[in-house]
Amino acid sequence: MANSYDTDLDKNPANYQPLTPLTFLARSAAVYPDQSAIIHGQSRCTYAQFYTRCRKLASALAKAGIKKGETVSAMLANTPAMLEAHYGVPMTGAVLNTLNTRLDAQIIAFSLDHGNTRILITDKEFSATVKQALTLTKTANPIVIDYDDPEFDTPGERIGNVEYEEFIKDGDADYDWLMPDDEWQAISLNYTSGTTGNPKGVVYHHRGAYLLAQGNAITASMQKHPVYLWTLPMFHCNGWCFPWTMSVIGGTHVCLRWVRADAIWQALADHQVTHLCGAPIVMSTILNAPEEHKRKLDRVVEFFTAAAPPPEAVLAAMADAGFNVTHLYGLTETYGPAVVNDWNADWDALDSSERATKKARQGVRYAALEALDVIDPQTMQPVPRDGETIGEVMFRGNIVMKGYLNNPAATDEAFAGGWFHSGDLGVMHADGYIQLKDRSKDIIISGGENISSIEVEDALYKHPAIQAAAVVAKPDDKWGETPCAFIELKPETTLSAEEVISYCRENLAHFKCPRHVVFAELPKTSTGKIQKFKLREMARQ
Amino acid sequence: MANSYDTDLDKNPANYQPLTPLTFLARSAAVYPDQSAIIHGQSRCTYAQFYTRCRKLASALAKAGIKKGETVSAMLANTPAMLEAHYGVPMTGAVLNTLNTRLDAQIIAFSLDHGNTRILITDKEFSATVKQALTLTKTANPIVIDYDDPEFDTPGERIGNVEYEEFIKDGDADYDWLMPDDEWQAISLNYTSGTTGNPKGVVYHHRGAYLLAQGNAITASMQKHPVYLWTLPMFHCNGWCFPWTMSVIGGTHVCLRWVRADAIWQALADHQVTHLCGAPIVMSTILNAPEEHKRKLDRVVEFFTAAAPPPEAVLAAMADAGFNVTHLYGLTETYGPAVVNDWNADWDALDSSERATKKARQGVRYAALEALDVIDPQTMQPVPRDGETIGEVMFRGNIVMKGYLNNPAATDEAFAGGWFHSGDLGVMHADGYIQLKDRSKDIIISGGENISSIEVEDALYKHPAIQAAAVVAKPDDKWGETPCAFIELKPETTLSAEEVISYCRENLAHFKCPRHVVFAELPKTSTGKIQKFKLREMARQ
Repeated sequence: MANSYDTDLDKNPANYQPLTPLTFLARSAAVYPDQSAIIHGQSRCTYAQFYTRCRKLASALAKAGIKKGETVSAMLANTPAMLEAHYGVPMTGAVLNTLNTRLDAQIIAFSLDHGNTRILITDKEFSATVKQALTLTKTANPIVIDYDDPEFDTPGERIGNVEYEEFIKDGDADYDWLMPDDEWQAISLNYTSGTTGNPKGVVYHHRGAYLLAQGNAITASMQKHPVYLWTLPMFHCNGWCFPWTMSVIGGTHVCLRWVRADAIWQALADHQVTHLCGAPIVMSTILNAPEEHKRKLDRVVEFFTAAAPPPEAVLAAMADAGFNVTHLYGLTETYGPAVVNDWNADWDALDSSERATKKARQGVRYAALEALDVIDPQTMQPVPRDGETIGEVMFRGNIVMKGYLNNPAATDEAFAGGWFHSGDLGVMHADGYIQLKDRSKDIIISGGENISSIEVEDALYKHPAIQAAAVVAKPDDKWGETPCAFIELKPETTLSAEEVISYCRENLAHFKCPRHVVFAELPKTSTGKIQKFKLREMARQ
Repeated sequence: MANSYDTDLDKNPANYQPLTPLTFLARSAAVYPDQSAIIHGQSRCTYAQFYTRCRKLASALAKAGIKKGETVSAMLANTPAMLEAHYGVPMTGAVLNTLNTRLDAQIIAFSLDHGNTRILITDKEFSATVKQALTLTKTANPIVIDYDDPEFDTPGERIGNVEYEEFIKDGDADYDWLMPDDEWQAISLNYTSGTTGNPKGVVYHHRGAYLLAQGNAITASMQKHPVYLWTLPMFHCNGWCFPWTMSVIGGTHVCLRWVRADAIWQALADHQVTHLCGAPIVMSTILNAPEEHKRKLDRVVEFFTAAAPPPEAVLAAMADAGFNVTHLYGLTETYGPAVVNDWNADWDALDSSERATKKARQGVRYAALEALDVIDPQTMQPVPRDGETIGEVMFRGNIVMKGYLNNPAATDEAFAGGWFHSGDLGVMHADGYIQLKDRSKDIIISGGENISSIEVEDALYKHPAIQAAAVVAKPDDKWGETPCAFIELKPETTLSAEEVISYCRENLAHFKCPRHVVFAELPKTSTGKIQKFKLREMARQ
């Protein structure tokens, strides 16, 4: 039914513009032209220069024939070129596909074909893999641009048609870049790491990128001009949208090709870094640095981590070293983080073990996400808020992907019932904080009882000699499955399998305790996640 | 042309939700249930309680028959009921119309008729005006709810059908409030103060309210849990959207019925206020408080002001008193502030007079506004960025109103050429900062030359004996118009008209100097703006 508020009050260019993070860069370049935008080794770039380079890149891409809705792929480390791609590519209406630089040629070739890559920008460090991938593609035949990073001083083959600086040199510094026609327009394409089957191409839109870019600034309580250190790979969910967040508030990007302890500590101290993100492995890298590399920090640095909950001992050590750790959670399908362990000041009064229990929870929705719940996927009803009943974690809101590229079946399945199904199992606590219990496929079902591998791992992590632990299902004739623990010990410690099992029995219900214990280095993905599918294979043998 | 990124990647409830500030309150109530949401005199309210009261209000409104697209008006001071109305009314799909409590019965009656008010919530302090207004309405016949604020201890007549607490008592605390069907749906209606003709009804939508609510937090660099003092009337552009901003980050509202120096200083010190907004008159109130009311502040308080640029002496005095003043600019049509004098750290090194010159500029667009420019309204081309060429300030973006209610002619005129025409005249400086020179109707045209009244006023404000000054056109047979200055002197100072004119001649081009000087108290609107139309009448006589 029409009412006065819907009559003669339509959208027009004066009162409606598509939301896009591109406007943030234009603003920062206008308002803070001389502000430091990028630090990379010895090179420095202001916001005016950064914006100009992005426009030149966009112009050069357009001259090379790139059109709206086409794919430009980037096989790049955390370098200025990668930041420029986050703006220059969508400025043409094209879609940025960042490739995981640690993947092999076969998967890279699959992505190039599936996304129909028209132009590929590649760092010399990865030229061997890319060269091989280009021989494996079936349909894609991209123009290849070599990026020759001065900070990469190892010889590497040029395999492309043109060098990056050459390519953008003729771009127009005043290029009149395109606003998206619609904020629902795609801005980027991120392939899942897919442990089984082919990777899926997750499509982000301008609207979501705008909202999470701002959402990060708000969640991280960022003041104007923060300094952000790039320890999180930008190829991972577009660096959780932080390439765009910095432009909201005129922040400085400190690039880093490799996550190495000496370079991290040097950047932290020399560039007054205020924020960084990374997998738990980055915390270990920081903490386990040789003492001569560590530096005294004159401020608390905000560290955002995802994946496994940070163990108590790590949190304490990070605090001592000058970091405040916040635990985030999300998936490639949610632009990276969409859930935050929003810390309640009352919890400061708890003892360190209770605090760690609170910190281990994944938490609550970002303000930019409209709903988060733990739901029984059969009935689509929320589980009781009892901290015990396991259901599937589901998301609903504007920082959930458009869907999977060229994969309507997977898209429909992911969005069944009007919620995004994460595939992660969790519980809802009485206070509305969620806690992950497992990936659906990581749950261990033993004698009809569900065992959360995370719960067993948590118990193992509390043992003073255990550095890392992962628990998977081992097929068992009698019980169906039983828990099998893989353990990395701390240096100069020893422990027997019997000691591990008896320790677990003191701390866990009997049926949850591992029946088998294997001491081994844990296989990890390029983003630092433990590869349970490999452990499951090992357990099976 | 369709491409893969537009195929099978449609909106659905999992990945698209209307933007609305209502979700911010739901989140804060869930995440910070025990956090202080509202302080009002002796009363305290947590986020859980605040959310419950808003849902009860919404439920009670729905029971009383309010439907989507209907108008609920509020004649309220800065009280908890006003905050509740900002959520409870739109939770029903209805539109909140906040009335300027200082207006007379005739204009109130006009607004009630024009907006077709169905329910009116009114504070007892204003019952005499409202009672009279209700006798003057032609079509509106609202249900009237009296709000009996415990902090208002003066007798006042109850004129309504029911008292506010009685009304919401039977509301459902678990009311399943309505998300807007579309983020373009109206959320509020604000009448302009319109110095000539009837006020126009400016319509805001959920999308804009969401974006500016976040935009304020980002522009003000607000950390989690700020404490916001209500010195700006909430009836003024929905308190610049700060009623919604606080819910983004779990901030505390400190209500204040009256802008009085003792109450302000007490709140600042007792409640650890971090932010407040207000017209320049609020700064005077703070600074001119008797010494026994002033308190030592243990932190820098952020003060946001709009309207006239803060004079140098006021900025210095505010800094000494512990405030950092930021100059904002906007109109009712832009949800309040859409432009900020974004301070460049380099300017700290300037001397105090140069700093004041920088501070006096209106500045640059909010990140939530997509474009701001100074444009020749004839050609619709931007003026040169020379700081001299006068054009009309124009806005484009998502924090520009839907339009004027039931007034398509005025709406079309305001949006001509795809920009919102502010009616304010200004210049664009080389660095992209705009500076107002005048309202179109405030420009003085003398002997064919344009004289900016603001420029003359700026010169006058620099005189040590002048407290306030306003310059308007006086009709003149020979010159068409000449500048006429109205001046308030500082206590215990004297100055003659001749001294004022000769002072101006030392500092301004001759033709810009006032020909007439009047010493008088300046008439101000309810929001502290000087009423130049009254001065023009006086000058004419």
